[in-house]
Amino acid sequence: MGSNSALPTTARAFATGGKRKTAGIIVIGDEILNGSTTDTNSSFLCRRLHHRGVLVKKITVVGDTIPEIAADVAEFSRNYDLVLTTGGVGPTHDDRTYEAIAAAFGDTLRIDDDLQAVFEDVLSKYKQRPDTAQAIQKFCSIPSSATLLWGDKVTGARKFPCVKTHNVVALPGVPNFCESGYDQLENALIPISDTSPRGHCQGPRC
Amino acid sequence: MGSNSALPTTARAFATGGKRKTAGIIVIGDEILNGSTTDTNSSFLCRRLHHRGVLVKKITVVGDTIPEIAADVAEFSRNYDLVLTTGGVGPTHDDRTYEAIAAAFGDTLRIDDDLQAVFEDVLSKYKQRPDTAQAIQKFCSIPSSATLLWGDKVTGARKFPCVKTHNVVALPGVPNFCESGYDQLENALIPISDTSPRGHCQGPRC
Repeated sequence: MGSNSALPTTARAFATGGKRKTAGIIVIGDEILNGSTTDTNSSFLCRRLHHRGVLVKKITVVGDTIPEIAADVAEFSRNYDLVLTTGGVGPTHDDRTYEAIAAAFGDTLRIDDDLQAVFEDVLSKYKQRPDTAQAIQKFCSIPSSATLLWGDKVTGARKFPCVKTHNVVALPGVPNFCESGYDQLENALIPISDTSPRGHCQGPRC
Repeated sequence: MGSNSALPTTARAFATGGKRKTAGIIVIGDEILNGSTTDTNSSFLCRRLHHRGVLVKKITVVGDTIPEIAADVAEFSRNYDLVLTTGGVGPTHDDRTYEAIAAAFGDTLRIDDDLQAVFEDVLSKYKQRPDTAQAIQKFCSIPSSATLLWGDKVTGARKFPCVKTHNVVALPGVPNFCESGYDQLENALIPISDTSPRGHCQGPRC
């Protein structure tokens, strides 16, 4: 029901300036599938992407299983311009998104020094736990072909990078981290052409 | 994150009585993908299915496009014991779920007399609209191989049937209709074996 082509006025000029960019969203976590947590990230992302003129084509919710996540990442990466994942990027054993993204692209994992420095800085504020080394290993092992996105410098907010591999960007699962992560990256992920001034989003969230 | 294997106590006996039944959920509607409506049906269904011992393996959200819905219906039907769809079963032109389910199974559509009788009874309470004949045609054309599920007679509630085609059950998209539809069908869709009395769900919602 409803019409996905009914763009908000603010996004219409942007979207009609060329072929509409497409996106897919992959929500990762057993806690969504067993009903103990209600996903709100996909709804937030849909609203924001639509407002920006991006056509969200599909959302999928999968559990913490590498082959299942990897299959969706590979399919979505082929089919859509931009793929956003949420969840599964923490430091515990059931956070498997980076491994799955690597698997989707036939990639290996590497420890990223910059990510490790950020993570150790965060950890330094807390009492050391016995599994710290393991947590660092888990949290900072990203696909070898990945880059870190540090967000929009205009905001001046403290930065925590998101991991981008080809056209797939991994956002955190915790809603306020997911939302602030997307906020910081929006301009970089969906650039507004300088030649289409009417395309600039004038809505209350932009 | 989280563990899908951590069943509530009430469902554990049921689930361990045999191989756990699996389910997939397909949420249909452009209004979800463009962010104008937030899906709550999948979260409701996940909680209820998990409480009943059913392992929800995947959720997908797709727009009102027959080939895309049909592709997911066919894949989910092959992969999971039970498939629940929500949305796209109304009488307007963009409600395409029945056509898509028929396409998924290489089936044709037929007008169902029982469904038409129910629908005309509902319509009789409202002022006739010029498009009534078209609405009946749309609402009551279901896959030829489909059957109607009339719900749990114990409830005594007024019945509005849901459409079942093979292992795929089409529920309405409006949340209170979806929830009451599932409530009425739960015992039929997920029977509790008479030989496993400990399997009976004793939770607050059962």
